[in-house]
This record gives sequence, C-alpha cells and structure tokens, in this order.
Amino acid sequence: MGEFDLIDRYFKRPARRVALGVGDDCALLAPGPGMQLAVSTDMLVEGRHFLSTVDPARLGHKALAVNLSDLAACGARPLAFLLTLTLPQANAAFLGAFAQGLWALADAHDIDLVGGDTTSGPLSVGVTVMGEVPTGLALLRSGAQVGDELWVSGHLGEARLALEAFRGRLSLPESGFAAARRALELPEPRVALGQALRGLATSAIDLSDGLLGDLGHVLTLSDVGAVVELGRLPRSPLMSVQTAPVQRQCLLAGGDDYELLFTAAPQRAEAVSAVGRTLGLRLTRIGRITGADQGLQVLDDAGRPIDQGDFTGFDHFKRGVA
Amino acid sequence: MGEFDLIDRYFKRPARRVALGVGDDCALLAPGPGMQLAVSTDMLVEGRHFLSTVDPARLGHKALAVNLSDLAACGARPLAFLLTLTLPQANAAFLGAFAQGLWALADAHDIDLVGGDTTSGPLSVGVTVMGEVPTGLALLRSGAQVGDELWVSGHLGEARLALEAFRGRLSLPESGFAAARRALELPEPRVALGQALRGLATSAIDLSDGLLGDLGHVLTLSDVGAVVELGRLPRSPLMSVQTAPVQRQCLLAGGDDYELLFTAAPQRAEAVSAVGRTLGLRLTRIGRITGADQGLQVLDDAGRPIDQGDFTGFDHFKRGVA
Repeated sequence: MGEFDLIDRYFKRPARRVALGVGDDCALLAPGPGMQLAVSTDMLVEGRHFLSTVDPARLGHKALAVNLSDLAACGARPLAFLLTLTLPQANAAFLGAFAQGLWALADAHDIDLVGGDTTSGPLSVGVTVMGEVPTGLALLRSGAQVGDELWVSGHLGEARLALEAFRGRLSLPESGFAAARRALELPEPRVALGQALRGLATSAIDLSDGLLGDLGHVLTLSDVGAVVELGRLPRSPLMSVQTAPVQRQCLLAGGDDYELLFTAAPQRAEAVSAVGRTLGLRLTRIGRITGADQGLQVLDDAGRPIDQGDFTGFDHFKRGVA
Repeated sequence: MGEFDLIDRYFKRPARRVALGVGDDCALLAPGPGMQLAVSTDMLVEGRHFLSTVDPARLGHKALAVNLSDLAACGARPLAFLLTLTLPQANAAFLGAFAQGLWALADAHDIDLVGGDTTSGPLSVGVTVMGEVPTGLALLRSGAQVGDELWVSGHLGEARLALEAFRGRLSLPESGFAAARRALELPEPRVALGQALRGLATSAIDLSDGLLGDLGHVLTLSDVGAVVELGRLPRSPLMSVQTAPVQRQCLLAGGDDYELLFTAAPQRAEAVSAVGRTLGLRLTRIGRITGADQGLQVLDDAGRPIDQGDFTGFDHFKRGVA
C-alpha cells in the first residue's frame, strides 16, 4: 500500500470544523473573533515513549492525548490536529487499530485531522494540535503569585507504577497492573478542566515529566518558590500499598501523569472546588507558592524538608521507557 | 547535554511576531483580521529524504524550506513554525550548524520558532509551519478550470540530477554537481510568488513529488485533464547536456523541485508574466487544462503523446534517497 492510499484509507475524513482539511498543500482554519490560536506539538518514539508491545489503538489515543493535554494546560478549546507517522511498513492491522484509537479521542473532543505526513522508518508518531483561547485568558506557566495555593487534578504516579512493573522493578496484582497500565497508555487529557480554569487559575502546566520537574518550570517562569506537602499528594489505592520510597518516586517524579498542576489565589479555593465537583474530577491542594528565595521545598508528614536529589524531571536524553 | 539545555541553547529566541513563543505548554498566535490560518507539516527522515552526509546547515534550511513551500503553494504569508527533532545524540557541532541553517531561512522570512519537541532516536526533522492568507484567497489544488494555462516557476529536474549522481547512475562535471546538489539541498521556497498569485492563479501546488505526480493531484481535485508540452519544460544548462531519457525522468518525475505549478486563465497571462519580472523569477507556460475525459497527456516535440508509465510521483513507501 502506498503513502497516498494509506492516508486516504485511514486518515482522510471530511473536515467538519475547519475551512479546509486534508488533501491540499495546507489546511485552513481560523480561531473565532477575539480568540488566539494555541498550538503545540509532541512526538512519541518507540522504545522511548512507548513499548513495542503497546496496543496500537492505545498508541493512537495517547499520541493525541498528550498533545490535547498541552492545550488543556493553556485553557484552550481543541480545534484540529496534524499527524506525522513514521512506520517500518504500511501494516493494515496496525493502522486500523491505531486509527480507531486516534479517532475515538478526536471524536470525543470534536476535532478534525487536517493534515500530516507519512514516511517509512522506525516507528514514531508526531501530533501537532491547534486550539483557541480568548485573547488574554490563556493559562501560562508564568502567572503564579506568592501566596497562591498549588492544586493538582486526579491522582499521581500510576503511570510510573506501570512502567516500573514493565521494567520488572516492582510487581503489581493483575487487576492493579491493568489499572496502572491503563493510566500509562490511556491518559485522559484534562481539556474541560483547563477551560474551566480560565480566569480562575493564575498559572497551569500539564504533568508529563513528573511533578517536581514540571513545577520547576512554573517556579522559574513565575519567579517564585513553592512548598509541596508530600502527605497531601493525591494517590490511588494502588499506590497506597507500595513502599514509601516507591510512592515518593512515583508521586514526585513519576512522569506521564497528564494531570493539570495549577495555582489559584486562596480566596478562589471554593470556586476551584466547585469546578472539580461540576466535572466529577478530584482537585487537591498540595501546597502553596512562596517567594523565589525559598526555592522548591517538599515536606514530609512531619513537616521536615526531604532531599529532592533523586527526583529530577524526565529528560528524554537521559532515560526512556525501554 | 539534556533536552532542555539543548532547546535553550539552540532553539530559544524571543518571539517577535507571535503573542507567545517557546517555553509554555502552547504557543499563542493570531492571524490578522479577515485572515485564515494556513498550516502544514512535513518531516525529513535520514536515508529517506536526505543522506547521512548532508551538511547540517543545509538540512536545517531544507527542513524549513519544504514546509514554507507548502505555505507558498497556498499563497500564505509565513508567521511561525514548530520543530520536532529526533537525534541519535545531542551533538553540539551538528546542532550549531543545523540551527544556523534553520535560522538563516527563518530570518529571511521573518518568522518565529514557537515550539517543538526533541527526542533521542534515529535522525529525523519535522517542521509544522503556520501562515496567514486572506479568507477566500488561498490558492487551492481544486480550482483549475478547463482552458486555463499551466505554468511553472524556475526550472525543473536539477535536484533529481544530484540524486542520480549520488546514486552513481550518472556523472556530472564538478561545477555541475555542486549546482545540482545546491538545488537538492538548498531549495528556495517560492513564498513571494505564492502571495503574488493570490487572485491571479486559479490553482497551485508545490512540486515535491515530481511534475506528473503533483499535477495529478491538481487534476483529480479540480476534476480536469491537462496537456503538458515536454519541449516547453524549463531546464537549466545542466539538464541540456543529459540524454533525452534522463531529461524526461528528471523533468517529469524528478521530485524535490519545490517550484510552484499553477494555473491561470489565458487572459491573465500578461499579469502572470509581470509577476515573474517583478520577482526576477522565470515563469513558464508548459501546457493547458483540458476536460477531465482527456486525462493527462504529455506531448513530445513532434506533438505526439508519450508513454507516462515510467514517470510516477515519488512515494515514500516505494523509494527513498538512500
């Protein structure tokens, strides 16, 4: 099957929300009046971001999900995406499943695939997403203020538990492994939350590289410090049965959580909680923003600072999934 | 050197033309009033789109150039781009040269790098470009009308000559090889031409896969046929000394030309020629648009149709540069 046949067969559908979709030199779209376009791109490479054994449908889901998560972190409403596929060969079974997972998530967010590129080569999937956000209302990493409370959605660390189980470094009961694997392979981008936080959160970032690493970006760009209370970090029952060191590693530097980490003024706490109730999504206060001179402190249950030396963010040139 | 250091060192510059550039979850930009956003993505993979011996500066140029060429083919003005790099290792000499080639072309078109992603893995370069075009004025592949004249910019086939020389299938004098190699490695996207053709051309496409293959897309989407006169195809002195079969292959199915192929009504011929004079760019009428029932015909110098069986478009699943 040739490149053009592949595109036609799996990835060409009429555009519903943009002016021009797949098939010309460019796609054409326009954010609404008073809107800015938010754009982001992320690539998944086999052996680095996913295992060769992954279910192709889940890979299709995740490739789009991690990009939608970036839009969520800006408070943007998704509009469209581009897909770049590098494939060892044009395998219909793989592509059919991949496309099914991809389209299911695209349909859930009512967005169009408007272009892309396919090439033969080692398996990788690149997605570029575009969304819209009212001018001036995008959630930025640079907006955290001293005195703000620090919040996180969902719970943390399950994706890393699955990864460590794959690596053979810990064992999980069968049902627990399935749940953790689901967290790793089928993350739910917090798109509705991001939009609900417009005008409410002062800053936001999505958790892809681990809590401390991603929080560090916010602190740097906002020129502030933070205190995080380890005991407040939201964890699932799966996590609670792990040893304390495993819990710390997964919660503080797990990676692949795709939850939103955000800041809000203390007087907005009830409004933030109301958003969580409306969306049926757990939102947890995990700390507060301090002056830049205090840096980033993590306190244990006794209120003592813990050594963060072992909890650096995920760096794709240092370690991968394989 | 880690991923974040790499990005900072080579690819982070203050955004000049967009609201928010590199460093947050998304970039933010807005097309001007009455403008649509044109977006396109293309990836270059080592061994498939470029040789491992390529000068990194030229690779940086070409990765952006082939994408700007898509904007040109839509008549869009470039605004910004995203960069996705997969690298075997973080090599400063490679990245410095690559960045220099990339920025030189970005600066020539006054566009911002607004985001991206870097990963370790087999070398590939993905770029997503964004531009703006007045609503309703984008040049599409679907607009060719029966009776239109068929035009092409520049001259064709030199990039393919270089590729065949690399493959050892033909030899070129040293100066000729340098010139052909320059055409292959440093294509000039016809950005100014694309914008000048707004409201003048009825359709346009950029020549990346070879004249006949790319023309085929226009004919299919416009539901028309075409006659191309082989003798009219613009060729450089380099091409003129090749054998007739080599000339045909390179001119009709060379690939990597990055010239614009476009159609215009015969009564607009003088206006088109004036655009060429203004830009100092050769624009050549090479044929005309016919009814769909006549398909695509290529006539030799005696006016006889030639067999096109050997001149299919470049398909990345069929053959690469390596």
